[in-house]
Amino acid sequence: MTIDLNRIRFNSLHEKVMSADQAISFIQDGMVIGMSGFGGAGEAKTVPLALAEKAKLHPVKITFATGASLGNKIDQKLCESHVIARRLPYQADPTLRKAINAGEVMFTDQHLSETAEQMKHHVIAAPHIAVISAIAITEDGQIIPTGSVGNSAVFAELADQIIVEIDNTINPKLEGVHDIYVPVKRPNRGPIPLTRVGERIGTQGIAIDPEKIVAIVFNDIPDTASSMAEADEETLAIAKNLINFFENEVAIGRLPENLGPLQSGVGSIANAVFAGFEHSNFKDLEMYSEVLQDCTFDLIDCGKMKFASGCSMTLDTSAQRVMQNFDFYKDKIVLRPQDISNNPELIRRLGIIAINTAIEFDIYGNVNSTHVTGTKMMNGIGGSGDFTRNAHLAIFVTKSIAKNGAISSVVPMVSHVDHNEHDIDILVTEQGLADLRGLAPRERARKIIDHCAHPSYKAALNDYFDRACEKGGHTPHLLNEALSWHAKFEEQGSMQ
Amino acid sequence: MTIDLNRIRFNSLHEKVMSADQAISFIQDGMVIGMSGFGGAGEAKTVPLALAEKAKLHPVKITFATGASLGNKIDQKLCESHVIARRLPYQADPTLRKAINAGEVMFTDQHLSETAEQMKHHVIAAPHIAVISAIAITEDGQIIPTGSVGNSAVFAELADQIIVEIDNTINPKLEGVHDIYVPVKRPNRGPIPLTRVGERIGTQGIAIDPEKIVAIVFNDIPDTASSMAEADEETLAIAKNLINFFENEVAIGRLPENLGPLQSGVGSIANAVFAGFEHSNFKDLEMYSEVLQDCTFDLIDCGKMKFASGCSMTLDTSAQRVMQNFDFYKDKIVLRPQDISNNPELIRRLGIIAINTAIEFDIYGNVNSTHVTGTKMMNGIGGSGDFTRNAHLAIFVTKSIAKNGAISSVVPMVSHVDHNEHDIDILVTEQGLADLRGLAPRERARKIIDHCAHPSYKAALNDYFDRACEKGGHTPHLLNEALSWHAKFEEQGSMQ
Repeated sequence: MTIDLNRIRFNSLHEKVMSADQAISFIQDGMVIGMSGFGGAGEAKTVPLALAEKAKLHPVKITFATGASLGNKIDQKLCESHVIARRLPYQADPTLRKAINAGEVMFTDQHLSETAEQMKHHVIAAPHIAVISAIAITEDGQIIPTGSVGNSAVFAELADQIIVEIDNTINPKLEGVHDIYVPVKRPNRGPIPLTRVGERIGTQGIAIDPEKIVAIVFNDIPDTASSMAEADEETLAIAKNLINFFENEVAIGRLPENLGPLQSGVGSIANAVFAGFEHSNFKDLEMYSEVLQDCTFDLIDCGKMKFASGCSMTLDTSAQRVMQNFDFYKDKIVLRPQDISNNPELIRRLGIIAINTAIEFDIYGNVNSTHVTGTKMMNGIGGSGDFTRNAHLAIFVTKSIAKNGAISSVVPMVSHVDHNEHDIDILVTEQGLADLRGLAPRERARKIIDHCAHPSYKAALNDYFDRACEKGGHTPHLLNEALSWHAKFEEQGSMQ
Repeated sequence: MTIDLNRIRFNSLHEKVMSADQAISFIQDGMVIGMSGFGGAGEAKTVPLALAEKAKLHPVKITFATGASLGNKIDQKLCESHVIARRLPYQADPTLRKAINAGEVMFTDQHLSETAEQMKHHVIAAPHIAVISAIAITEDGQIIPTGSVGNSAVFAELADQIIVEIDNTINPKLEGVHDIYVPVKRPNRGPIPLTRVGERIGTQGIAIDPEKIVAIVFNDIPDTASSMAEADEETLAIAKNLINFFENEVAIGRLPENLGPLQSGVGSIANAVFAGFEHSNFKDLEMYSEVLQDCTFDLIDCGKMKFASGCSMTLDTSAQRVMQNFDFYKDKIVLRPQDISNNPELIRRLGIIAINTAIEFDIYGNVNSTHVTGTKMMNGIGGSGDFTRNAHLAIFVTKSIAKNGAISSVVPMVSHVDHNEHDIDILVTEQGLADLRGLAPRERARKIIDHCAHPSYKAALNDYFDRACEKGGHTPHLLNEALSWHAKFEEQGSMQ
């Protein structure tokens, strides 16, 4: 491992360089640890991995907070060593997921914009120690983040002690791409002065008291490449339905020609939608989102996207191209803290079009993003609530069926509500698009069944809705049957 | 009826004075009509009442948008005359409720901050005609609202034609209490420049092109006095539990001494909580809310509250006192448009403590504010979502049982989700208070059952939770039983 002291430009900190094994001696049982990492990019690596190793012999339990999900199987390894007592605000690891669903790890599933806010204002405990991944420490002691900003700024601000992990694998040219703005504590807070997607309102690094840095470690471990399912017939149809809708909205003057700032959840459907933009007539697209994926850079390359703001870069096939030509992208992207990328004030002001993926939605427009059959946590709500709650247009996409048709993604009643009927504007499957704007529940039901449900489930949905309507109510339901589709799936392996 | 032309200080408009019967000739079948009125205060009166009368002989259907609920039985009378095809964004009328639940009127139940925003940006249709209740029209043609601002400013801005209804019953001294700030249309929108509860950022009246005013009518019909159930043993216990919590939060330094700006839903529980503040040690309280009720003015009178910002004044016993001594209150209150009083940007920035009433909540912290047994609309979500979604602390209160114990307000799974587990911090009943901050679902369940459930339902809730946990999951549920309490109530009249 290379120890490149040129990356520590605040010279008095050179003496804080040590091994990860030495650094983890600061981490004590019962502590809250706030660590870098968002969307599998920019996480601290050697420190958590050393902690997982040490805990096999010397058990330790921590509350483990990050930006969002981590690469390098860090959640898996910490979980296997029983280090994680509580996890927040998001995760996407199969081993940890299993422990959460068994009730062994307490998972505080949070809106990603809220962790920083809640820690700052004593709603939840602030970190004792922050472990911050960095490209460098500047002459004035600022910490320059790596491939994500996440919650690193607020963790560093609030923690008593900071461990910096210099990541040798990250191109130093990333310095300058971050824009660190931390809202002051209430009650003395003013407006966040951002009015355009591309504006810079903060500093290039995280400004902290360098005295708080107790250890600096180096790592040579690259970010894990994201792996994305290839687009298939259904994801392409979803993308087509959505792009047709956008084209029509522009044609009738309800959306501006560049649509306005776009947010997109992570995944193959989002990727397909963005790929669809490549061959559309839209131009000057802008993104104000969390994760900048391959598709973001593809749109920049072909001249369709003029600026993308996020809090993380999670790259797969384009990683090498982007990093090698970073000078080209540097004035076209910015990485912000997640309480700025996902901030309700900014989402409302900018008028974001939010596109996120649902596990299932119901005939009245309620959306489940987190729980399989209402009980088993998948990953967490992530930023979908931050955006949906305050978006100009809140859109959810999903395939109309799953497991070869054993599951209908359109159900009488969702088994868990993450986004409710009040917040949803548009639902899209490969079957079509339901425009729910301004509609009452009974109107929505007919549209959703007609446009989004799979043909193999339409008759059953219409039958449920018709019989519920006979009973009456603003939102007609048959309480004894509302969740029976899920129960049937649990018992018989199919909703059919 | 007095026609006082001194109230129309823009003299060229004098010729637009006419009777309500004449004015309603502008209203055509199929139109969207945007009318003043919020919380039963400040509604237009003679125009809708004349419309209800005329429609008995000459049927007409409109989309009827207001600020929120109306006094003077206007919704009832328009509904009985079958005038309302679609109603938004809120209502609280028994006759209209019945028509909504029968599927005869389409009800677009909206977050109250969103109607203005959605009309402005073509998500829903903007009004053809605005009917605006006014104290006066100023020398420069501004319309001065009456006891509420609601959506009047945006309706007037967007409508092709405006009917002004001068309300003789409103004390002209109210002129100056309103602060009309209308965010500009995106994409040219900047921050809303409000950083303190008491700040004024707009104009005293609604500035429009006076050419759009096609009719001015006068009325002598007073606002309907609000009627509030007296505090009982349970509401007083809820108030005590909440105030004990606040005292403790201040003592340990998690809340400032004046708590920070308070929002409160309308109703007897909120009134009891605010009455509780009178005998507390808190001082310099501030309110940033929708409706200013009697209790607001009581707290101002006793020197506990220094400023209250709302979008409506709904007064019962204190109406006369407040109106006769309005000079005393004028620098201590302000009335704003509802997209400012309920704005997510401001709620997040100011750090609002939001206190709203639930119909029911479940063991995991999901809240139902709108639907009785999941199907029948009560009033609508109102502002509870605007505040809860972005509050510093989101608190819901309710009595632990209803209908003499036939209904438990704490259930295994709510029958409709208006506010989900991600957004709820504190739940309170007369039994106690559950502090859910930072907890995972299984931890919340035990706290909610222990602290909030009625003793007569505790065993059954624990039994459900224990058996669900045996099945596993992050949020354990038994899908065949989750809604069985509601189904049993529907079938047998009791959850017991």
